[in-house]
Amino acid sequence: MPSISPTRSFPDPSKVLVLGAGNFGSCLADHLGDSEHNVYLWSRDADVVKSMNETHRNPAYLKDHLFSEKIIAVGPELPGLELIEQMDVVLFAIPTQFVRENLAKLRLKSMKKLPLLIFVNKGIEIGTHALTLEIIADTCGAEIAKSAAFISGPSFAKEIVQRQPTSVSVASFTDSVAQRAAMIFHQPHFRCYTGSDPIGLELSGALKNVYAIAAGATDGLGFENNTRAMIITRGLSEMTCIGTAYGASPLTFLGLAGVGDLFLTCSSPTSRNYTVGYRLGKGESLDSITNTLGSVAEGVTTTKALKIIIDELGVHAPIATTIYNVLYGGMNVHDAVRELMELPPSKELDLPPTAGGPAKQLLRKLGLD
Amino acid sequence: MPSISPTRSFPDPSKVLVLGAGNFGSCLADHLGDSEHNVYLWSRDADVVKSMNETHRNPAYLKDHLFSEKIIAVGPELPGLELIEQMDVVLFAIPTQFVRENLAKLRLKSMKKLPLLIFVNKGIEIGTHALTLEIIADTCGAEIAKSAAFISGPSFAKEIVQRQPTSVSVASFTDSVAQRAAMIFHQPHFRCYTGSDPIGLELSGALKNVYAIAAGATDGLGFENNTRAMIITRGLSEMTCIGTAYGASPLTFLGLAGVGDLFLTCSSPTSRNYTVGYRLGKGESLDSITNTLGSVAEGVTTTKALKIIIDELGVHAPIATTIYNVLYGGMNVHDAVRELMELPPSKELDLPPTAGGPAKQLLRKLGLD
Repeated sequence: MPSISPTRSFPDPSKVLVLGAGNFGSCLADHLGDSEHNVYLWSRDADVVKSMNETHRNPAYLKDHLFSEKIIAVGPELPGLELIEQMDVVLFAIPTQFVRENLAKLRLKSMKKLPLLIFVNKGIEIGTHALTLEIIADTCGAEIAKSAAFISGPSFAKEIVQRQPTSVSVASFTDSVAQRAAMIFHQPHFRCYTGSDPIGLELSGALKNVYAIAAGATDGLGFENNTRAMIITRGLSEMTCIGTAYGASPLTFLGLAGVGDLFLTCSSPTSRNYTVGYRLGKGESLDSITNTLGSVAEGVTTTKALKIIIDELGVHAPIATTIYNVLYGGMNVHDAVRELMELPPSKELDLPPTAGGPAKQLLRKLGLD
Repeated sequence: MPSISPTRSFPDPSKVLVLGAGNFGSCLADHLGDSEHNVYLWSRDADVVKSMNETHRNPAYLKDHLFSEKIIAVGPELPGLELIEQMDVVLFAIPTQFVRENLAKLRLKSMKKLPLLIFVNKGIEIGTHALTLEIIADTCGAEIAKSAAFISGPSFAKEIVQRQPTSVSVASFTDSVAQRAAMIFHQPHFRCYTGSDPIGLELSGALKNVYAIAAGATDGLGFENNTRAMIITRGLSEMTCIGTAYGASPLTFLGLAGVGDLFLTCSSPTSRNYTVGYRLGKGESLDSITNTLGSVAEGVTTTKALKIIIDELGVHAPIATTIYNVLYGGMNVHDAVRELMELPPSKELDLPPTAGGPAKQLLRKLGLD
């Protein structure tokens, strides 16, 4: 691997608490340490805390990597206010399904001076179909949601710790917050681009997994380049229509969190969602795939939530609907492709009006409408 | 290859003249014959005409394929008005550099009833930097340009003749023309999506080749998924900015001619433009690459034209500018990557105003402004 991207020393180091020592949390903690920030990494696993502090290794993720010595691991108890109050930044790298309970436990609302909150989790909350932005608004109030930042984009952790050139989107409703978050992460090998549409960024990150299943399925069926490009592009059009109906900006889907991450996920045979699709295309049943994978791939759950969102919004989303029918309605993959291909010709991008959508209610709640 | 896409018999066969029996022209002639249209295929090569009529084989392209028996090959002389006047459709599948002279020879302006004109060539005319739309307006007048249709999208000829699921964009300033062109080509295995932005569609088709060189170069340097996704997405953002400044709609770049074809070209090691980039990344000189390839890849020429367009428009397009500097300014590929990655953080999509741009002049000429 060529080393073309030296780390420049960060002029103004911050104190950052990273919550979650999974694949992406560990990787970002390492990146921030590499940039001379003072990093605290919380894990709920005492072994990870011990190993990280003693040997700078994570026994569960990125096992070959020697982590930055700037990382101090803490846990297994969730850090209390006395640590958080010293922080400039708190980075949430925990699964979406655990954000609500951890935000509630942290009692951020009672703090005098709030650190910058950055969220890198992707996905929709099961049961509520809420985006993280809504979870924050529910648990911490509108002001805190309005000044949170969200990071997403095509970024495999393994390649980031190797300092391979990577770019991400950083979005917040508050421009100065997006810029500050970008400055903390930005490096020659980790470029940050700012935006002001966290709803579009969050939807991109969640929905792409559904279309990765579709891309895997056509590959599994034996189709080649034209079909994969079609599925990715038509999937992107669907994501854009759904997002626009929800209240996001269609142009967000052109960016790193949209096209970029969709492309990464759909062209990576190591992606779990792609693998589910690929094996469906080969004729395996979802039960059999899930049994071997050990757990349910995120896109499988998201498809169910997305179906409800699509129906509520009244958006035409034939690929997502077909994936739903294959996963949950017993539809054969061959019939699914035939049905999709036999749809009549249509306009390429027929965007719904942006006026309505669940985002409107959320924006009103945030005082941004 | 699974056969999931049966050809449905076309209810209303058209008479179509395909000009150009290259890879894509032959493939589309075959697709139209497969759909029960009556197809005339013009080649300037007498051997191709003879072989196609006698054995239904093209000795130069898609050699393994047995072409539709509905194809009647004509040539080597360019068909005269007496044949063209019988046609419902004339499809231009000749290189952009030959469109002007052939349009002039055909004397379409003197015809009483004009067939539907469809253009599938991609690229910018060398010397004039004109799009095909402008070439048509120059040689045939505004009315004919206004009612022409353009087809583009992720479509390898080899996969189309195998009836693998494929989708394309069909654009015209005249909605009914786009719809008619789409109906002629549309099949369950060849889906047509209509649009009304031929300028964006044409720019996408030409510019993608420049960014394919960039994607090849980062692969050649040894970088992996994050970097490729970054180059493709940031390249798409640049294409969108250039297109918007030119007068196209930014959302066209989200479609099959934009994202779709860019993705296909950038992820295909068989693409000539990608190959040029890949070998530059490996340290070879452009001269040495061009000598082995036998001819100049289209993106190499387009980069020169694009640099002039970028400078005229005053658009910030760092990737295209860097590719220009590597190809024509002796810049080292490693320095190029370093320079790009060291740019300061910025907004993700900072679209220029759409008011100006060369398209405005063209639209005025076409009576569409």
